Amino acid sequence: MRVFIAGIDGYLGWALAQYLTEAGHMVGGVDNSFRRDCVSEMGSYSAIPIPSVNERRYFLAKKYGKKFNIDYFDITEGDKLFVALSEFRPDVIVHLAEMPSAPYSMIDTEHAIETHHNNLDGTLNLLFAMRDHFPDVHLVKLGTMGEYGTPNIDIPEGEFDLEFRGRKAQVMFPRKPGSFYHATKVHDTYNIEMACRLWGLRSTDIMQGVVYGTRIGDKPFAPGLATRFDFDATFGTAINRFCAQAIIGEPITPYGNGHQKRGFLPLRDSMQCLRLIIENPPAAGEYRTVNQFEDVYDITALAEKVQTVYGNCEIRNLVNPRMEEEDHYYNPDHQKLFDLGYKPTVDMITEIANMLDDLKPHKDRILEKKHVLTPDVRWDGTKKRMEYCDEK
Amino acid sequence: MRVFIAGIDGYLGWALAQYLTEAGHMVGGVDNSFRRDCVSEMGSYSAIPIPSVNERRYFLAKKYGKKFNIDYFDITEGDKLFVALSEFRPDVIVHLAEMPSAPYSMIDTEHAIETHHNNLDGTLNLLFAMRDHFPDVHLVKLGTMGEYGTPNIDIPEGEFDLEFRGRKAQVMFPRKPGSFYHATKVHDTYNIEMACRLWGLRSTDIMQGVVYGTRIGDKPFAPGLATRFDFDATFGTAINRFCAQAIIGEPITPYGNGHQKRGFLPLRDSMQCLRLIIENPPAAGEYRTVNQFEDVYDITALAEKVQTVYGNCEIRNLVNPRMEEEDHYYNPDHQKLFDLGYKPTVDMITEIANMLDDLKPHKDRILEKKHVLTPDVRWDGTKKRMEYCDEK
Repeated sequence: MRVFIAGIDGYLGWALAQYLTEAGHMVGGVDNSFRRDCVSEMGSYSAIPIPSVNERRYFLAKKYGKKFNIDYFDITEGDKLFVALSEFRPDVIVHLAEMPSAPYSMIDTEHAIETHHNNLDGTLNLLFAMRDHFPDVHLVKLGTMGEYGTPNIDIPEGEFDLEFRGRKAQVMFPRKPGSFYHATKVHDTYNIEMACRLWGLRSTDIMQGVVYGTRIGDKPFAPGLATRFDFDATFGTAINRFCAQAIIGEPITPYGNGHQKRGFLPLRDSMQCLRLIIENPPAAGEYRTVNQFEDVYDITALAEKVQTVYGNCEIRNLVNPRMEEEDHYYNPDHQKLFDLGYKPTVDMITEIANMLDDLKPHKDRILEKKHVLTPDVRWDGTKKRMEYCDEK
Repeated sequence: MRVFIAGIDGYLGWALAQYLTEAGHMVGGVDNSFRRDCVSEMGSYSAIPIPSVNERRYFLAKKYGKKFNIDYFDITEGDKLFVALSEFRPDVIVHLAEMPSAPYSMIDTEHAIETHHNNLDGTLNLLFAMRDHFPDVHLVKLGTMGEYGTPNIDIPEGEFDLEFRGRKAQVMFPRKPGSFYHATKVHDTYNIEMACRLWGLRSTDIMQGVVYGTRIGDKPFAPGLATRFDFDATFGTAINRFCAQAIIGEPITPYGNGHQKRGFLPLRDSMQCLRLIIENPPAAGEYRTVNQFEDVYDITALAEKVQTVYGNCEIRNLVNPRMEEEDHYYNPDHQKLFDLGYKPTVDMITEIANMLDDLKPHKDRILEKKHVLTPDVRWDGTKKRMEYCDEK
């Protein structure tokens, strides 16, 4: 299939371009370096060094022996998007061109608005382009499990049958975002569901858990082709930060009491899921939601797994800069991907060992930027110094 | 109380400024003429002539014997908003500064994006200004009954107790917007609910039915103080268009089979509801939703009421330019405003008679622009000529 990846230069996009190419698909895409620029604004960089987009294109062509169409523009510019899609003629658009950080969206009103513009405008341009010119294309969109929040009930996959005062309707499962980033994903969900319902478009909206890992197979990426690894408090996930902290001998710092539960998935299995979704498109007019994760852990379990693999490192909880429930019920469904044939390939301990192996050569890069591991965005807008829970 | 009205130059804003002033409140506000500009872009104007914002300020001062703080800027500019709020020091912010037209939001991707920017950015600026500087202010926000769509079950007021697989949670009632305008209202709902939950802000989110009428009491507005009356297919509601059509002797044109049901409320009663909400604020941290409407009618009933009052006029259905359910269940709750003391004051027939009386002197203005009564925005993006259902 012809797969157009919006956000091809990002953590998932770059990995997916290679994974799908190896699976025999024709890949192209676009990026505007938004992720590189934001991480740079936070004073950080990818711990594993990544070459420029131009150089990446060169290494890709070298490995696979053919040219790749990778454009540089912002998909919030609808005209450019239309031209690129017209030239590429995709069967599938994988939309990864969104700002993925909760803390970044909570910095101030400018960052909240920037997140809304980047995430919503790009999706709207894709939907109108599909309505007017590419109505058969399958839009694969990355949402997040965080859209649901942590309700005191099970979480179905997107929709459910609601019986209310003796009548029934199939409805969207209620969302409860915890940051403006998560809120933009909820907004996209509503916009895409409506576009499928009104215009007969087809889309898979992936409520994705936290993806971790530095590999799409048993071995590291080929030279020049590694995907990015963020470890700063704004763009690095908890598990990435824990690995970086272990490597430089700093305490591992879960936020709050560390009982917050989330769904997790190794990068290589997220690639497998995306491939299954791409190769099994929904019908015209169908808005399909999948919950994409493998296992649920609390944050303390992650910290302990890093400790188990790395050995000698301390766990020391930080006062939570976020506002979130720390003790809560969490039981989301995740059956649809298994129904499509998904088979988990690797356990978390093995993948953390791989991550640590791939990071160790870059210990100095992490050390040079170790200050970015300390969160400085608080949900309440205050600018206090971070404290360990045991200092309180 | 000190009430800051964002969107004070609009249909509801201008009426509310006078209604609250008469009730003894101190009113100020802001507008950027967005509504005037959009209606003008559609080739139309208010059937009842309205003076410029400067002239309006003069007539207001003349009638009430005091100055009014009415600024001209766009609340999507956060810095200006902060200055205006700091000077006015409101107890309540009534946020009416949103683009209110479903068809306008469906014209193309540029208009969909413009609607998102205008509606979401203003709300985000208000929420951050409240978090950082005005945490006790009560935000009164206009949503729409259209956020819910027309589900096959009763519609509670915003939240409800969901029992799912034997467990319970209080959750947001699922939304199902029918246009990008409606979608932006859903997005605001999620953003405001989150801000109240995370930051302890207080807000009343009004799921408002369709408001109609040209008066806030038994008599018309004083000279120079009338509120606007839109009758074009993009900004005029069905009932406004029906009145305008009757007056110029054109057929009254419900869309589709005319069985679409909605909640309705006369302007003067919407003012009463807003006053009750303002004078009875929610607690800190409370996100309160009210469904604000008086009666449910289908579109055909509206057309027939205009016919009953005006006499000699024809009803002729147009092929529906929208994509919406035409035959559907509709039973929303609307108890909370009655609990606050709301008492309906006028029936629809009386108010339609008043509307027609107030419009008749402006028959020539409607005649001059009669082409704007024909809808030219179709939800599917096609540009076909409009057809009557009996021509098909």
